[in-house]
Amino acid sequence: MTRRVRVGAAQLGPHQESSTPEEILARLLALLEQAIAERVQVLVYPELALTTYFPKRIRSDAARFFSTAMPAPMVAPLFERAREAGIAFHLGYAERTADGRQFNTAVYVDERGEVVGKYRKLHLPGLADGPSARPGAVYEPYYFAHGDTGFQAFQTTHAQVGIAICQDRRFPETYRALALDGAELVLIGYNTPAGPLAYEQNELVMRAGAYSNSVFVVGVAKAGTEDGVELIGGSCVIDPFGQVLARAATTADELVTTSVDVDQARAARERWNFLGRRHPGHYTSLTEPVRVPETKSRLR
Amino acid sequence: MTRRVRVGAAQLGPHQESSTPEEILARLLALLEQAIAERVQVLVYPELALTTYFPKRIRSDAARFFSTAMPAPMVAPLFERAREAGIAFHLGYAERTADGRQFNTAVYVDERGEVVGKYRKLHLPGLADGPSARPGAVYEPYYFAHGDTGFQAFQTTHAQVGIAICQDRRFPETYRALALDGAELVLIGYNTPAGPLAYEQNELVMRAGAYSNSVFVVGVAKAGTEDGVELIGGSCVIDPFGQVLARAATTADELVTTSVDVDQARAARERWNFLGRRHPGHYTSLTEPVRVPETKSRLR
Repeated sequence: MTRRVRVGAAQLGPHQESSTPEEILARLLALLEQAIAERVQVLVYPELALTTYFPKRIRSDAARFFSTAMPAPMVAPLFERAREAGIAFHLGYAERTADGRQFNTAVYVDERGEVVGKYRKLHLPGLADGPSARPGAVYEPYYFAHGDTGFQAFQTTHAQVGIAICQDRRFPETYRALALDGAELVLIGYNTPAGPLAYEQNELVMRAGAYSNSVFVVGVAKAGTEDGVELIGGSCVIDPFGQVLARAATTADELVTTSVDVDQARAARERWNFLGRRHPGHYTSLTEPVRVPETKSRLR
Repeated sequence: MTRRVRVGAAQLGPHQESSTPEEILARLLALLEQAIAERVQVLVYPELALTTYFPKRIRSDAARFFSTAMPAPMVAPLFERAREAGIAFHLGYAERTADGRQFNTAVYVDERGEVVGKYRKLHLPGLADGPSARPGAVYEPYYFAHGDTGFQAFQTTHAQVGIAICQDRRFPETYRALALDGAELVLIGYNTPAGPLAYEQNELVMRAGAYSNSVFVVGVAKAGTEDGVELIGGSCVIDPFGQVLARAATTADELVTTSVDVDQARAARERWNFLGRRHPGHYTSLTEPVRVPETKSRLR
């Protein structure tokens, strides 16, 4: 018996600051329609899918990029159409809570339209203060609190699903914590400025995370040039052996689909047993308080 | 200021069961002479460099593969010549302690001939009992106890040096624990049976370990066909950005040399601060006792 699931990585091209919510929704819906036509069961939109990557500069008008409820009014038609078509989806957005806290968040919405998983980004890149003259500086800790959800695997119809966001993927602890909680399919949206090796390192860490933890990884980019900042693409689906099964060819809106057998994650676990053959007694330094020299200006 | 160090990965071709200690020493010395000629400062021999990879089957004559003292008599000339030339080296071997415990061990011998670091392999692949009919089965836990040294960085003349061995490299905790202890240069010897993706996964995990922890990695194989078992090569030197700087072209005795600037590890740490921006409070599951379903026959 296999558990075949058709997954779709819904890479988004750039959202400009001048893009309207209506324009963005139309593009999300176009990718959804394509996914329906291609019989996708789990559709993965990237990090901050509803807005430009606004943490690229300090600004006073950021409130307009945050959503307080999900579904937010602007994506109600997306939720409705996905429910009608029986497609589950992952969506990243800027969340503002009722009590005013702000997070870089992603939700998993099942095929009945229910939000069955929510993750708030833990590892925030960039500066808490600013602006900085450093080229390529970003300011996530200025806008967001560090996530408080932890790394959880959500039981869904198709798989045990884990969520991480962008910079999280460069921390091996992310995949490990998700896998130890039972994740089989890890969804990772990102907005990653282009630069030397940025594309290669993106694929490197996701492939190694998949292999070392016997999980599938779906990595999905917001890509292309947003208001002068170039973001890498490279959206892809990776199997538990570290192989890229499918990969985006552009930095525009592009649906990357492939069928995966979720039971391969279980088979890989049984074959190598990387999780079971760990020696936690020798990893105690990993959970001790951070004690390496810190570069103060970069840390909250 | 930079800290330039010329490193050499001394890949070894196969040692057959019929290879004599004299034959093996002669090949180690030939690589050492080449390293001297190429002005190498740190020379890295692989795991179990003095013997065939004997854990590939259950046998009653294994005692002959173990060394009780280091330098063992068979490698005294190697220690002497390296000290004379002022070359530091890493050497993997099967260790038997005075009280009869057995480990898969590696030592770092500095340019004055002193053993300044010793590591005993923690993650042992294969079966504790046997023989098994499973193709490619190995039996390290049958021969060796799990290492008791932990992951330490050794202060040496050239760099803070960490050591891991073979299967350790597939566990992200290995690199993390070494980096948190201050390692800048991680030396990893291996004997890895060929198989689908074996070569690619070897490079994948070492590159990701280097990048995610801002360390250099020197991976060194025992390679080629030992008594019918084909081992991968792929010895390489990897920088803290995850790039392969130099790579072996053969599966025979081959010296791979390159010059590295150890300060790049520090610069990478300061630039991304992957160590300082961790959130250990969310990694607590990594140090909890192993609780995933275990495949009993494969675990000690």
